[in-house]
Amino acid sequence: MTGPLSGVRVLDLTTMVSGPIATMLLADQGAEVIKVEAPGGDYMRRVGVKHRGMSTSFLTCNRGKRSLCLDIKRPEGLEIVKQLASTVDVFVQNFRPGAIQRMGLSRETVSDIRPDIIYASISGFGDTGPCSHQRVYDPVIQALSGMADVQMDQHSGLPRMVRTIICDKTSALATAQSITAALFRRERTGKGGHVGVAMLDVMIGFLWPEAMASLSFIGKEEDPAHSQRSPDLVFKSQDGYLTAGAISDLEWEGMCRALDRTDLIEDPRFKTAAERAHNSAERRQITSDEISNWPSAELLARFDTEGVAAAPILNRTGIMDHPQVIENRIFQPIEDGVLGPVRMPRPATIFDDQATSISTLAPFKGDDNTAILTEIGYQPEQITQLNNANVLFDSPPTTDQGSRS
Amino acid sequence: MTGPLSGVRVLDLTTMVSGPIATMLLADQGAEVIKVEAPGGDYMRRVGVKHRGMSTSFLTCNRGKRSLCLDIKRPEGLEIVKQLASTVDVFVQNFRPGAIQRMGLSRETVSDIRPDIIYASISGFGDTGPCSHQRVYDPVIQALSGMADVQMDQHSGLPRMVRTIICDKTSALATAQSITAALFRRERTGKGGHVGVAMLDVMIGFLWPEAMASLSFIGKEEDPAHSQRSPDLVFKSQDGYLTAGAISDLEWEGMCRALDRTDLIEDPRFKTAAERAHNSAERRQITSDEISNWPSAELLARFDTEGVAAAPILNRTGIMDHPQVIENRIFQPIEDGVLGPVRMPRPATIFDDQATSISTLAPFKGDDNTAILTEIGYQPEQITQLNNANVLFDSPPTTDQGSRS
Repeated sequence: MTGPLSGVRVLDLTTMVSGPIATMLLADQGAEVIKVEAPGGDYMRRVGVKHRGMSTSFLTCNRGKRSLCLDIKRPEGLEIVKQLASTVDVFVQNFRPGAIQRMGLSRETVSDIRPDIIYASISGFGDTGPCSHQRVYDPVIQALSGMADVQMDQHSGLPRMVRTIICDKTSALATAQSITAALFRRERTGKGGHVGVAMLDVMIGFLWPEAMASLSFIGKEEDPAHSQRSPDLVFKSQDGYLTAGAISDLEWEGMCRALDRTDLIEDPRFKTAAERAHNSAERRQITSDEISNWPSAELLARFDTEGVAAAPILNRTGIMDHPQVIENRIFQPIEDGVLGPVRMPRPATIFDDQATSISTLAPFKGDDNTAILTEIGYQPEQITQLNNANVLFDSPPTTDQGSRS
Repeated sequence: MTGPLSGVRVLDLTTMVSGPIATMLLADQGAEVIKVEAPGGDYMRRVGVKHRGMSTSFLTCNRGKRSLCLDIKRPEGLEIVKQLASTVDVFVQNFRPGAIQRMGLSRETVSDIRPDIIYASISGFGDTGPCSHQRVYDPVIQALSGMADVQMDQHSGLPRMVRTIICDKTSALATAQSITAALFRRERTGKGGHVGVAMLDVMIGFLWPEAMASLSFIGKEEDPAHSQRSPDLVFKSQDGYLTAGAISDLEWEGMCRALDRTDLIEDPRFKTAAERAHNSAERRQITSDEISNWPSAELLARFDTEGVAAAPILNRTGIMDHPQVIENRIFQPIEDGVLGPVRMPRPATIFDDQATSISTLAPFKGDDNTAILTEIGYQPEQITQLNNANVLFDSPPTTDQGSRS
């Protein structure tokens, strides 16, 4: 299918994760994304498992894009980027505050080139303030946003990190949404504008509902850690781990039946939601002991029959074989002429009942130099000259077997 | 400021978290959101700390919306919703598959009423498959998507949950982005359509980059748990916790200087990135021991001087006082005529340098019954009749002091 953003052109100067995932989401929905890379390439090309010159980290953050690799510090390189800017709808960058100005691509400069452009900036902290100059890694934002406090170990009181780069990825989603909203506005009003996203702001906003909600009424705050005393809903069965939860009376009764403990239904300690909350430690112990006597598959089937929300806890390699994942066609192998068979989940949202399949994987560095320059009017001899003058760079696959499909 | 989505009207039949946060994000950007509640009200009105009849859970997921509370099972109630559907751009629902059809508001019915409507459905698993009928709580999706595996305890091997409802909230962001993309497409083509979001699909797509990337090359998979052996970047100082990380040579040298351990710069165990990775356990131990000798503030200032990414690990009540949070004006107290002073982070994205302030807090149940019905042509006597006939419901604040500003 053609995605809802087809026809949109994006010039993407971002590196690492927050920006690249944001523009990948736009590409998933049909936008044409031109990724501009410095001569050394996006740092993510060097992270993760490598196969024929492609790293898993780059592969998973840059599908559906084209790559233009050039030296922007050379006047000819900067000129190419400026010419491209005049042809696009969206310009995105995630350098530290001040850097893009020094590169000669400030908001003012780019807006002069293309007055209705949407110029999006992603940063850790915004443009001003005591931290704005700092280098940002994901744990820094987890530390300052409350995420590491939310994840605190309940026994030791030690803060913990979420073990995926949640701040980068959540900021990517927020950025993609905000750019899309700006595109909508531009369609209605003809006006571009600036989209500013700071990871710190995104994460505080993300965590606030529920994880910090008890701080809402000024003067009547309650410690948000209080409501988080309950242990994880992780249970050990005879042969694995599962999660299960019962909130309403009906769900609790279903859980008792599933566990062959109908005696608990009439137990006064657990008869109402209030009593179940009051005696949660005992309830937890009994539930946990009972679950440990069952094989996962049998018990999960019984939970299902009784309308109790439950699931096996899968490890990451086990996900691919789960029947719901298969039903949803999340993983359709992609056969790539260079990389061979590649696994990648399809874009999550389904528009008009037609799942978007991934047509183009991430590019090798500079894959599209010639095509992109040709489109904006460069002649073959000029391109050759720019190659020879070390303005343009590329780095094809590390094997000459086959070509990409 | 008027947000980029101003002029958009949304009819929101969602409850709990995933749908309400999605439509709240649209409201933040200027959309008019009419929240339709069943007579008992959104379940979230009963969760969390309550003040004058408003719960923190409802407050944090429903700002900027209007509330219409009616019995949709009554023909008069359904008729009102259908009339409203003819006036809106977007219809959103997050009932379990099948339920919205039984209510008489299927995609076909709603599209007949308003052919260019964007009809968005959020579910746990999609419409078909073995789990699609199941009740979904956040831990169920954490279990099936790999999130609980990512968060596994490194010592015990026990799966862990992320202790915020990450699946609900990430799905909300994905839904808001997808609806916005569909609005853009409609603006260009005149066509509405269906937006389908399944939480399972969203979370697998969210986790894939980096947390599952090593499964990308089919036949050359590496266990994604391998790359996660390193401990959290959480360090105990003399007086608190902090995070700090050094990846490049320059950052490592800066860290050594900040810790007054310039002797380590020349230490062959840590001289290159490869050696630092190889001897990471020793490096971690030395770093951890050294950090424990410093007060946080002093050491963080030294890290800052040396260009080392670092931050104090704040607890949630401490966030509000951090100078960067103050600089970013994330928390501007909102004075509400009924609720008194309320704390809530402003919408994260800043459009055109003008942060959006929160103008309207979450509504009390049925707050806007009369206004909304009047707008679609109901006469005062009809509204009185619908109130008396128990088609309309409301539940004003539990105090009569003052009125909302």
